[in-house]
Amino acid sequence: MDVEIISIGDELLIGQTINTNSSWMGEQLSLIGASVHQITAITDNENHILETLERASKKVDVVLITGGLGPTKDDITKHTLCKFFGVELLFNKEIFSKLEIFFSSRGFEMLDVNKDQAMLPSNALILENTRGTASGMWFEKDDVIYVSMPGVPYEMKGIMTEHVLPRLRKDFIENTVIHRTVKTIGVGESFLAEKIELWENSLKKVNIKLAYLPSPGVVKLRLSGYGGDERKVLMSISNKINELRTIIGDHIFGYDKEELNQLVGNVLVESSKTLSTAESCTGGYIAHLITSVPGSSAYFKGSVIAYDNEVKITKLMVSRSDIDQKGAVSQEVVEQMAVGAIAEFETDYSIATSGILGPDGGSDEKPIGTIWIAVASDSGVISQKLRLGNSRQRNAQITALTSLNMLRKYILSQNKSELQV
Amino acid sequence: MDVEIISIGDELLIGQTINTNSSWMGEQLSLIGASVHQITAITDNENHILETLERASKKVDVVLITGGLGPTKDDITKHTLCKFFGVELLFNKEIFSKLEIFFSSRGFEMLDVNKDQAMLPSNALILENTRGTASGMWFEKDDVIYVSMPGVPYEMKGIMTEHVLPRLRKDFIENTVIHRTVKTIGVGESFLAEKIELWENSLKKVNIKLAYLPSPGVVKLRLSGYGGDERKVLMSISNKINELRTIIGDHIFGYDKEELNQLVGNVLVESSKTLSTAESCTGGYIAHLITSVPGSSAYFKGSVIAYDNEVKITKLMVSRSDIDQKGAVSQEVVEQMAVGAIAEFETDYSIATSGILGPDGGSDEKPIGTIWIAVASDSGVISQKLRLGNSRQRNAQITALTSLNMLRKYILSQNKSELQV
Repeated sequence: MDVEIISIGDELLIGQTINTNSSWMGEQLSLIGASVHQITAITDNENHILETLERASKKVDVVLITGGLGPTKDDITKHTLCKFFGVELLFNKEIFSKLEIFFSSRGFEMLDVNKDQAMLPSNALILENTRGTASGMWFEKDDVIYVSMPGVPYEMKGIMTEHVLPRLRKDFIENTVIHRTVKTIGVGESFLAEKIELWENSLKKVNIKLAYLPSPGVVKLRLSGYGGDERKVLMSISNKINELRTIIGDHIFGYDKEELNQLVGNVLVESSKTLSTAESCTGGYIAHLITSVPGSSAYFKGSVIAYDNEVKITKLMVSRSDIDQKGAVSQEVVEQMAVGAIAEFETDYSIATSGILGPDGGSDEKPIGTIWIAVASDSGVISQKLRLGNSRQRNAQITALTSLNMLRKYILSQNKSELQV
Repeated sequence: MDVEIISIGDELLIGQTINTNSSWMGEQLSLIGASVHQITAITDNENHILETLERASKKVDVVLITGGLGPTKDDITKHTLCKFFGVELLFNKEIFSKLEIFFSSRGFEMLDVNKDQAMLPSNALILENTRGTASGMWFEKDDVIYVSMPGVPYEMKGIMTEHVLPRLRKDFIENTVIHRTVKTIGVGESFLAEKIELWENSLKKVNIKLAYLPSPGVVKLRLSGYGGDERKVLMSISNKINELRTIIGDHIFGYDKEELNQLVGNVLVESSKTLSTAESCTGGYIAHLITSVPGSSAYFKGSVIAYDNEVKITKLMVSRSDIDQKGAVSQEVVEQMAVGAIAEFETDYSIATSGILGPDGGSDEKPIGTIWIAVASDSGVISQKLRLGNSRQRNAQITALTSLNMLRKYILSQNKSELQV
């Protein structure tokens, strides 16, 4: 199945918006085994849209269109699609009722421009948008499928996940493609590549492709297995992952959709333990990651963001003389912060951070990117120093993920030794 | 001058790499007044590249191509360009010498694949790549300009900045294009569209285009003005923005690259005031946004993340009986949290949040998306209730941005009344 993705919107062409929709769609499509032939971004111009649809219809089996469905005037996709298919807009009573409910449940009045969103091309199969007011539309003509979706990423992703991907998978996919992702932390892409070179070379024989997907602090390794027999493909991927674990097991923290904040939540729930944080340089980012997990209130009690040194002293019982003598960015201070959080919040575990994220504030002795992390429990405290780069945002991300992983490993090692006792 | 950007590379189509090159190029081109007609991402396939060049050559004046120039096997752009122009590769002695210097100065050996990089199409004007080994190439044929550049962002940006943009600007640009963005908060796209309909209709007369760019909590309005005289275009955009302010001024929080966390920082620095937060439902996200601004330690003292009710009581002096009787998500509790933060951190201002972000935890009386925000100073406290949707992540974003804007307005109104006194 060949697919072209067409993104409509001037904002994409003048660089105001990065076309993340297309890359997300490309990834999802390749995961179900579809092949993305081309990604095209064009202006909100009727002729240009028509020409592009015409060209794509001769090249691919499926044309996925995003953008231009909002209620405002520069959104012209719907009318252009009517022209392309030679049909009219029809009032859709069912969608109108859903729009009424959508607005009234949010306490908003429904406006005329919103009512227009119930006017839909007569040949369209409507794909419900549970996240917004512009419906998705599925068309078929001369053996080509066309799908039109809003450009708002959150709404597009909803329609893709709930309707488009399941339908395409059902109609088109014969060959098995299985993807598994191994997630590593604390090791760079090139170092990883060197470590696993022999293993990587062995993948070809069993028809598995490898992709490196790096992001700040984390490198994901995606294995894609191809073949006719699903069970065999699954088995050969599992074998290769087992081999990989013997090489870099210490750096692997999870698989597939597992995220560190969720994994930390899981081990806390399993062992009925609680957590607090004491953050200086990360400024609440770790607490934010922890509380992004639904249900985190079961184990997360709270946090002191101690940006100011006085807060470290008064709220976390850090020694004033240690701050004066060793500096706020020091092993002594970060360990006291972690221990202070345990005492203040009466939790089983805590995480603490103190560092210089940049872009200013470094010194010869403690350059930008110098960061201390500590993890504490009632039985002790461990700490680690990071030496990162100059990007404030990257440094916050890497620090947060590293500290979550440090906590995860600490809890697992404690649970293990408890079991052995 | 109409431009098409063609990005070559499988990694763009399967979502492994986000096409940030194109958006950067689009932004740079629109800044010099060029009009980007289309952005096309295609696979490393000779026929596909040839077809795309053929089509683009009929539509635009300039075709900018990135990718497929590296030394690895799947990089085929150079050979395909030779085929497209009907020319051969020629050995370029000058480039070869530069490659030798490039490698020896870095202490690397020059490999055969690198020597191939001195083989260049005979009709190309060579654009020196000071940042890597693949040269840029400039072609002209039948009044269309074609430029081929490497896909590595750092190298492409060097060639664009040093060669391509100056040349295009010199050869082509007569018209001025000026973009300005007005940022609004607290009003949906459709409501906004209805409010400013008459104003929007008046833009055509002065040759200004409008685009709505919505994101969670914020709708950006981008005005693009066209014309021969830069001063006139600037003036007519400014006039229109002034008119817009009289209609929706209350919803406008900033312009162009201004962000709420930076704006809040600015007003705090200007008035030498300090800030703390007391976050329940946002779980540190507001503190994270505040501390994402370099230099925020000048005004941000810290935060209590009071996820647990006991923490609200012990660390923020919230009344236990109010929590029992009114619930943690109530006006009484959120106001006490804000006042508690002022007292605990001795700051001039504070923000507090308490709400039900979802996806679980709602009730009939307080459904998911019910959120209370408070802002306090030593002279009082104000609060506001939000009714949002079911997405945890969106709810956190909207709550954080709304509370930052509430604080910004509160400080501005206080500063104003101080001035009047």
